[in-house]
Amino acid sequence: MPSEFRLVRTVEFSETDMAGIMHFSNFFRWMEACEAGFYRSLDLPLISFVPGNVVGWPRVSASCSYKQPLRFNDTVEVRLLIKELRTRAVVFLFQFRKMDAAGQVRPAVVAQGEIAAVCVTADAAGKMVAQPIPAAVRAKLEPAPASAYTA
Amino acid sequence: MPSEFRLVRTVEFSETDMAGIMHFSNFFRWMEACEAGFYRSLDLPLISFVPGNVVGWPRVSASCSYKQPLRFNDTVEVRLLIKELRTRAVVFLFQFRKMDAAGQVRPAVVAQGEIAAVCVTADAAGKMVAQPIPAAVRAKLEPAPASAYTA
Amino acid sequence: MPSEFRLVRTVEFSETDMAGIMHFSNFFRWMEACEAGFYRSLDLPLISFVPGNVVGWPRVSASCSYKQPLRFNDTVEVRLLIKELRTRAVVFLFQFRKMDAAGQVRPAVVAQGEIAAVCVTADAAGKMVAQPIPAAVRAKLEPAPASAYTA
Amino acid sequence: MPSEFRLVRTVEFSETDMAGIMHFSNFFRWMEACEAGFYRSLDLPLISFVPGNVVGWPRVSASCSYKQPLRFNDTVEVRLLIKELRTRAVVFLFQFRKMDAAGQVRPAVVAQGEIAAVCVTADAAGKMVAQPIPAAVRAKLEPAPASAYTA
Repeated sequence: MPSEFRLVRTVEFSETDMAGIMHFSNFFRWMEACEAGFYRSLDLPLISFVPGNVVGWPRVSASCSYKQPLRFNDTVEVRLLIKELRTRAVVFLFQFRKMDAAGQVRPAVVAQGEIAAVCVTADAAGKMVAQPIPAAVRAKLEPAPASAYTA
Repeated sequence: MPSEFRLVRTVEFSETDMAGIMHFSNFFRWMEACEAGFYRSLDLPLISFVPGNVVGWPRVSASCSYKQPLRFNDTVEVRLLIKELRTRAVVFLFQFRKMDAAGQVRPAVVAQGEIAAVCVTADAAGKMVAQPIPAAVRAKLEPAPASAYTA
Repeated sequence: MPSEFRLVRTVEFSETDMAGIMHFSNFFRWMEACEAGFYRSLDLPLISFVPGNVVGWPRVSASCSYKQPLRFNDTVEVRLLIKELRTRAVVFLFQFRKMDAAGQVRPAVVAQGEIAAVCVTADAAGKMVAQPIPAAVRAKLEPAPASAYTA
Repeated sequence: MPSEFRLVRTVEFSETDMAGIMHFSNFFRWMEACEAGFYRSLDLPLISFVPGNVVGWPRVSASCSYKQPLRFNDTVEVRLLIKELRTRAVVFLFQFRKMDAAGQVRPAVVAQGEIAAVCVTADAAGKMVAQPIPAAVRAKLEPAPASAYTA
C-alpha cells in the first residue's frame, strides 16, 4: 500500500513572474499534478463521470509555505505523502526539493504544502455529495509515518 | 445589432513573466474574457448545458500578433469586432490598446488577435456536433464593417 | 488609514476546470489581484525595481479554505483585511462572497484565504533581503479589528 | 544540426475547462515548453540576463488551429519543427499528436501551431533591441524540410 509518490518537473517560462521566480499560485498546480500522477500510478481516477460511479475530490483547503524561490529551468522533485486518511477525506502533504545537475535531490525543502480533499459522488439528482472513501480506493492508500516528513 | 464590444482590464502580477511583460498566452485568455462579456451583454450564453438546448463555441483557430509589450498595472482596452459571420461559425477580431492615466484610449494597437469559433450542440447521444448558429443568436450578431478595424 | 479593500470580479471561462467550477489555484491569483488593487488605491507599489528603492513582497505562506464552489460568470466580492502587521511582514485575510443579480453581496463566505508577505529590498549586490516595512508604507496600513472578519 | 524536437506531456486537471477539454490557451504554453526543451537540448538559453550577453526571444506572433480536443490525462507528443530561419527571427511549427497506451504516437495531428520569435539583446541603455541571431546560436539551428511537416 503506497503512502507516497514522487513527481519530477521543470519550471516553465510561463510559470515565472516579473520577480523572476515561479509564481506562488503555481505550486498549487504542481501539487495537484503530483496527486494526479499518484492516482494514475494506482490506476485510480482523480475524477470520473462514469454514471453510477461518479467520483471526485474537491478541495476543502490548500496551503503552502515558501522557503526558497524556484526559477526558470529549475528541476524539482515534488514528493507527496499521505498525512491523514479520514472517512470521507484525505490530507496530502507535499515537499518541494531542487535537483542538482546530476539528478540528485538536494536535502533542503524549498516549499511545503498541503491539500485536504473530500471524496464526493453524485446523488440521484446529480448533485455532488460527500461519501465515505470507497473501499477499493481506501485499500490502496496508507498514511505515511510522521517520521517520513518531519525532522 | 451590435458588432463590437469593449472590455477594460488591468495587467495582473500573475500574468507577467520573468521578462517583465504579460505572457503571450494571456492575450488569448483576455480575448475570451472579452468575448464572454460580449455574450453576457447580449444575454446570450458562451456555454450552456441546458438539456435540449446545449450550446458551445469551441475554438477552431486562434492567433495573435504582438506589437508592444504590456506590463504590470497597464490598463488596456480590448475591443472585439465581428469580422465574419458564417453559417456555423463566427470570427472575432480583437484589438488591444493601452489607456492613459486619464482613462483615454491611446491610438496604437499593441496587439491584435483573432478567434474563430464554431457553434456546437449535443446530439441525441450527447456528442458535440456543429450546428447552424441558432436564429435567436444570429439575430443579435452583425459583422463590423472592415473600416472599423483597418487603416 | 485603510485596513481593508474590496475587489469585484467575475469568474472567467479559462478559470474553470472540467469539474465545472473555478479551479482552486485561481483563488490565490484573485487574492493577489485584490492585494494589488489595494496597493494601487494607496498609491503604493506591489513591486518596484526603481534603483535605490527596490521593493517587493514575496510570499512566505498562502492558504485557502473552500466552502462553496464558484462557477463561470459568478460575480464575486473579494474583501481584503489586514490581519497582522509585523515589522517586516504583513498578513492579509481575504473573504470571497458571491453577489446577487442586483449587485448585493450575499452574506455567506464561499472561500477564505490568507497571504503572509515579507517586505524585501535589494542589497548593494542586488540580492533580495528582508527589510522593515518602510515608514511611508506603514503609515498607510492598519490592522483590521478582529470583529471585522469574525462571527 | 537539429531541425526538430519532441516533448511528451500529459494534460493536467488544471489545464482543463468546464467544457471538459484542455483550454485553448494552454496549447500556447505547451508550444513554449517544447521550445524551451529544444533550447535546453542544445545548451542554449531561451532567456538570459547575463550582462554583456543578454538574449531573449519575444514573440512576434502566435497561432494555433484545433482539430480535436485534448482531455485530462491524455498523453501527447508535441513536435517542434523549424519552419523558417530569418536574420533576426525564427519561426517554429508545432504539431500535437496523441499517444496510445503503448506509448506509440498516433498519426492524426490534433492541433498545429506556430510561434514567430525575434532575437533581442539589451543595448547600452538596457533597452531591448532586435539583433541578428548570434552565430553560435544559428550554427545549432537548421530549418526542417517542408516534407517533414506537410502531407
